[in-house]
Order: sequence, then structure tokens, then C-alpha cells
Amino acid sequence: MHEIFLDELKKLNAQFMEMGVLVNDLIDKGTRSFVEHDKKTAQEMIAEDKEVAKEAVRIEKKALELMALQQPVATDFRVVISILKATTDIERIGENANSIAVETVRVKGNPRLPEVEKVISNMTHQVREMLVQVLTAYVQEDEKNARLTVLGHAKVFKDYKNARQMIIDGVEQEPDAAVASASYFVIIRLLERISDHIVNIASWVIYKSSGELFELIKPKKK
Amino acid sequence: MHEIFLDELKKLNAQFMEMGVLVNDLIDKGTRSFVEHDKKTAQEMIAEDKEVAKEAVRIEKKALELMALQQPVATDFRVVISILKATTDIERIGENANSIAVETVRVKGNPRLPEVEKVISNMTHQVREMLVQVLTAYVQEDEKNARLTVLGHAKVFKDYKNARQMIIDGVEQEPDAAVASASYFVIIRLLERISDHIVNIASWVIYKSSGELFELIKPKKK
Repeated sequence: MHEIFLDELKKLNAQFMEMGVLVNDLIDKGTRSFVEHDKKTAQEMIAEDKEVAKEAVRIEKKALELMALQQPVATDFRVVISILKATTDIERIGENANSIAVETVRVKGNPRLPEVEKVISNMTHQVREMLVQVLTAYVQEDEKNARLTVLGHAKVFKDYKNARQMIIDGVEQEPDAAVASASYFVIIRLLERISDHIVNIASWVIYKSSGELFELIKPKKK
Repeated sequence: MHEIFLDELKKLNAQFMEMGVLVNDLIDKGTRSFVEHDKKTAQEMIAEDKEVAKEAVRIEKKALELMALQQPVATDFRVVISILKATTDIERIGENANSIAVETVRVKGNPRLPEVEKVISNMTHQVREMLVQVLTAYVQEDEKNARLTVLGHAKVFKDYKNARQMIIDGVEQEPDAAVASASYFVIIRLLERISDHIVNIASWVIYKSSGELFELIKPKKK
């Protein structure tokens, strides 16, 4: 009985990790489609924007099934719960990546602010590294590494604030960039939110290995 | 044994509902502080912006404790799971309300776009009604009412798109409104996200009463 459970749990873990890797690609695809004005890629992402949500439901169903039928205890219990909870954050990250693709379609041929797009690329690079970091910490049950995502988030948040000021200055000097600025404001926020979800996942990594449940402290939005 | 469990569950339900009512007030407070330039209220909210997260952890801990110790089945199982999941959405709604308050502090005395602030007030009214609707549906296990939140979300999303265009036009005509526009873009997005979280809660209301798990379909962000 327990062997079957552990085997199911192994599969569930693999499914969760695959979803994490998938959304990490989506973040890259979303931002590149925007920065490189690649509407085709953006349209492809939008066409498939329900896939991540569907996979999340599949994982949640499986997790709930294991909970209900096997009534796991101790570590097994925490593994299932951490997947049940962290899957939602992975799903939101995927949604946010798709929302970036949506901006690619919206912004059209309007004047852009290249310096802002540089920051957007940097933020994307940063959040993708954070996601790899937290997924690795998940597999290795590495609490220390999970906690480090908070530092990554502080960086992303700093970029968010700088980018925000850049956009304001840019549109003041060049009101024609107003349409692009709308997309910029949305995208930098989406990337900051992705980073926030990664920190949430980190707190479930910590719960999984220690049983401790708490909110990792994030920088204030002032 | 089961009596004790049901009693604990009743308490947990009450705690969950109270948190829902609390964040509904925060949405109102956040937007009013912004529209009425009430920095004092905004500062108060920001000072307490960890409270909602702390309460969410308390509820999650309690839910996990009930799961682990009582190993509930059938309906009891679904009630605990729906609280465990929906609490995260309530928490995010509270975070978003606080983020609106943060914009009150950011926007300072810069030129504003009154017509946009009207839409923001309408959106706020709409999402607060949706939250009451879903919380009521939760208590009454009213699937039908829970599903109706999707219609509310469609309205909010329409307002979001209209407001977005208004802001773009406004800042093109009046570049001095660039600072305010940054806050407007953030706030309309936050309100749209709140509406999105409410629809997520609705899907947990449906799970709770039917055992069905799925993502309620939301309008595409095109």
C-alpha cells in the first residue's frame, strides 16, 4: 500500500516539476515576444493560455485524491500539501507570462522606450533564475536556498521601482509612448508578481522539509 | 471525536469568513484613501499590511492541523481543503487592497484624471459586491451564485480595458499626469486581479459543495 502511495507521490512530484519548468519557459517566451515584437509567438501563447490552468487542476485533483484515499501522515502529508499549495503559485506565474504575451499584441507599432525594455529583460532573467532556484530547492529540500529567493525578490522589486520611474520620465518627455507605457507598467508589475509567487513557493519548500508554516518577509511596496 | 472536529471546523469557517469581511473593508479603505487623497488612512493600512498574511497563516495552520489530526473524509475533507485553498485568494485580495493604499502615498500632489478615478470607484464597488456574493455563496453552499461571479468578472474586465484606454488618452493630452497614470495603471490592474481571485474562490465554493474541481472560465485578456 505505502509503496503504491510513494510511487504515486513520485509521479506527482515529477508532474509538479515539469509544470515549473514549463512556466519558466513561458516567462522567457512572453518577454522575448514582447521585446522582439514577435506577435506570432505571442499569439501562440495566447491560444494555449488555458493549458497551464488545466495542468494545475490535474495536479490538484491528483493531490486531493492522494490525500483522501491514502490519508498520508508526517512527511508524506507535507509533500502532498506543499504541492497542492505551490501548484497555485506556479499556475499564476504561467498566467502572468501569458499576460506579458498579451501586451505584445496590444502595443502594436507605437513608439517604445528601449531603456525600459532593457530593464524588463533583466527582470525576466532574474525571475527565471529565482524560479530555477526554488524548484531546485524543492527537489533537494534545501531550506537555505529557498530562503535566498527573498534576496532575489528584493532585487526584482528594486528594478520594478526604477523601471516605473523610467516609464514616467519617458512618457513625460515623449507622450507618444503612452500606449507602450501602459504595457510597460503592466509587464514590470507582472514580473514583480512572478517574483512574489516564487517567494510563496519557497515558503512551501520550507514547510515541506521542516513543517514550519510562515510567510517569508518581502520588501514593503513603499 | 467527530463533535470536537465539527466544532473546530465551525470555528475555522467563522475565521475564514471574518477574514473575507476584513479584506472587503480593506478594498474600500484602499480605494477611498486613493480617490480622496487620504494619506493618513493609507499610512495606517501600510503599517498593518502584514496582518492579513499573518491571519492567513493562522487559518492555514489550523486547517492543516485538522487535516493531519482528524483525517476528515467526504464533505468534511472538502470543507477543510476549500478553506486551505481559498484563504490564499482572500490573502492576495488583502495584499492588493494594501497595494492600492501604497499608490495613495506615491501619487502625491500630481495632476490627476478625474474620469479615470470615477471608473476606479465603480470597479471597487463591483469587486466588493462580488466578494460579498462569493462569501455568501460559500456559507450557503450556493453553486449557482458562485458561478455568477464570472459575470461580475467580465464587467470588471471591461472596465479595466476602458480605464486603460482613458489613461492612455489622458496622459497623451496631459503629460503631467504621467505620475498619476502610473498609479492608475497599477490600481485598475489590482482591482482586476481582485476580481480574478474572487472567481478562484468561487471555484472552491463549487468544489466544497459538489466535489467537482475545475477552473471557472474567465474572459481572455485580449
